[in-house]
Amino acid sequence: MTVTAATSPTADAPFSTAPRRLPRRPLRVAILGATGAVGQELLQLLEERAFPVAELIPLASPRSAGQSVSWQGEPLAVRPVEPGCFDGLDLVLASAGGSVSQQWGPLAAASGAVVIDNSSAFRLDPGVPLVVPEVNPAAAFEHRGIIANPNCTTILLTLALAPLAARRPLRRVVVSTYQSASGAGARAMDELRQLSRTVLEGGTPESQVLPHSLAFNLFLHNSPLQASGYCEEELKMLNETRKIMDLPDLRLSATCVRVPVLRAHSEAVNIEFEEPFPVEEARALLAVAPGVELIEDHQANRFPMPTDVTGRDPVAVGRIRQDLSEPNALELWLCGDQIRKGAALNAVQIAELLIEPAPTAAGGVA
Amino acid sequence: MTVTAATSPTADAPFSTAPRRLPRRPLRVAILGATGAVGQELLQLLEERAFPVAELIPLASPRSAGQSVSWQGEPLAVRPVEPGCFDGLDLVLASAGGSVSQQWGPLAAASGAVVIDNSSAFRLDPGVPLVVPEVNPAAAFEHRGIIANPNCTTILLTLALAPLAARRPLRRVVVSTYQSASGAGARAMDELRQLSRTVLEGGTPESQVLPHSLAFNLFLHNSPLQASGYCEEELKMLNETRKIMDLPDLRLSATCVRVPVLRAHSEAVNIEFEEPFPVEEARALLAVAPGVELIEDHQANRFPMPTDVTGRDPVAVGRIRQDLSEPNALELWLCGDQIRKGAALNAVQIAELLIEPAPTAAGGVA
Repeated sequence: MTVTAATSPTADAPFSTAPRRLPRRPLRVAILGATGAVGQELLQLLEERAFPVAELIPLASPRSAGQSVSWQGEPLAVRPVEPGCFDGLDLVLASAGGSVSQQWGPLAAASGAVVIDNSSAFRLDPGVPLVVPEVNPAAAFEHRGIIANPNCTTILLTLALAPLAARRPLRRVVVSTYQSASGAGARAMDELRQLSRTVLEGGTPESQVLPHSLAFNLFLHNSPLQASGYCEEELKMLNETRKIMDLPDLRLSATCVRVPVLRAHSEAVNIEFEEPFPVEEARALLAVAPGVELIEDHQANRFPMPTDVTGRDPVAVGRIRQDLSEPNALELWLCGDQIRKGAALNAVQIAELLIEPAPTAAGGVA
Repeated sequence: MTVTAATSPTADAPFSTAPRRLPRRPLRVAILGATGAVGQELLQLLEERAFPVAELIPLASPRSAGQSVSWQGEPLAVRPVEPGCFDGLDLVLASAGGSVSQQWGPLAAASGAVVIDNSSAFRLDPGVPLVVPEVNPAAAFEHRGIIANPNCTTILLTLALAPLAARRPLRRVVVSTYQSASGAGARAMDELRQLSRTVLEGGTPESQVLPHSLAFNLFLHNSPLQASGYCEEELKMLNETRKIMDLPDLRLSATCVRVPVLRAHSEAVNIEFEEPFPVEEARALLAVAPGVELIEDHQANRFPMPTDVTGRDPVAVGRIRQDLSEPNALELWLCGDQIRKGAALNAVQIAELLIEPAPTAAGGVA
């Protein structure tokens, strides 16, 4: 049998008739891209969060064949992604890049699994929900086989924007990012460590994974430039934020920068509203916002740092202040673990959201 | 004789009646803070640029006594700053911190030297010019003994803003910085190297110079917070930019961040004008602006990086683009060597500006 890669779908052509929710029983779960930085974190999170797993199937491209991953303390052989590998699965968590998702995501959905895809392949597809569970959970239930996990910087940003936008309408957002090596994968993290050693030993660092050495250096995000002069990463922040927050005309300008940090992203965010937004009110809203942790100690001059959130779930927000240049604007700063909330955790949270609610004592659902 | 520290002057009380220009002959020059990162760079720049030096006197606080610096290939013993040490000097380049400048700067000026001060002590004093030679050279000649060298991030920013503001009025600037360890001095640079080694060896980094470890980490600038929630560094950018550009009502909001880079600062700058500013026109202006180097290779996705400017004079500017969120705004990115143009070079350029012009053949001045 010849399997043809599915083409990009449209809103009129669902990937599958898979049920909108995941059944409330141990599930057959595959991780596509299990050997990558996000794949590894997915494995760890499924364990940590006691996600109901009946069978865990690590999948990767044939070039990762022969590798194994650790699952519940035991090594588990990685299987190649191939026709038929999705049969009988309930859930596929995909994090193996856009072209792999483009090729295999629709086939996985067609086989009856719900696919939560960490790549950018389907994020702007009108037939695919783009979900941050704390921001637009209802969208998840509109899926037709595939749900897209947003870009890491976008997830972190929307967690801080949404509670504020719910109170007063946004006018314009200007954001500068400080993005860690992990956004370019485990090999980029290794390269940062290796080239930092080279510099410390007095050598000349030469990069092979990233376009330039990141050791004691930084550079503008190297995703392809568009005619506008913005790079793809910056336009993802614009377009994905618009879709997640259901604000199709939101004005947002981003500058995305790769910095020599290992695995947490930071963002300096200038938020203009349609009217003044009292700082104390913003602080109070963010202090109780889901997924957000306020780190604001003015006395100690202590605000979020990448090391505060590395390996942790919440997005840390702080230095919320009235913009001195614009009466209707606030400035704030945030940090979040790129691999965790910026990728793997958000995907697992989407899956958790889809699990059928427990029946109540009265026989209904809670 | 008891020497009393001078109090902060006012516009009505000049520090000295020192001549406005430096005589055109080899000068007696002191560097106050000669053992620091900026002091070392000042020594190197005076040599490199063949500044007319008759005698070079390295000064430092008594705790640096016994140290020596290198001058024209020879070691030169550092002298303690003390009463009488400025007698007969033409020029004092001060870079030993605000309290040292506050104490000794006015005394140096009163002894007849021109003081170019790298600290923040006198920058906002209405009787002290704050000068970036490419931006407001005329202000230098209004000095009355002391000229202030601006904050590093401000110098870099004004070099990019001034050529644009000369064409169309500015409305508002939003800037996020990526500031290197060198801004906190040579000891902070050493600490970054040391703690990076610690992290690479699997240890736990503990900072002593900076408030937190900068190794593979970053944090908001730790200068004291003001009631507004902005830190002093951010307010320096606002107030000093206003003074240098003679725009007392300029709207500017800054977020200042310390990043694990050794000695070059970067800035993401969003500039709103009173009217649309065509990108090509901005690019053409910046391509010929003094002190600016354009690094814009869209084909290769290559724009300024800290390593491009380390140890070099120009501020590198690139990724100039129309802000997608605001028709009247441009986005751009810049990098500059914090120790060089951000501090030492700018001070030496101010001194060069003050040297009397050469007489012309006709007996006048050029």
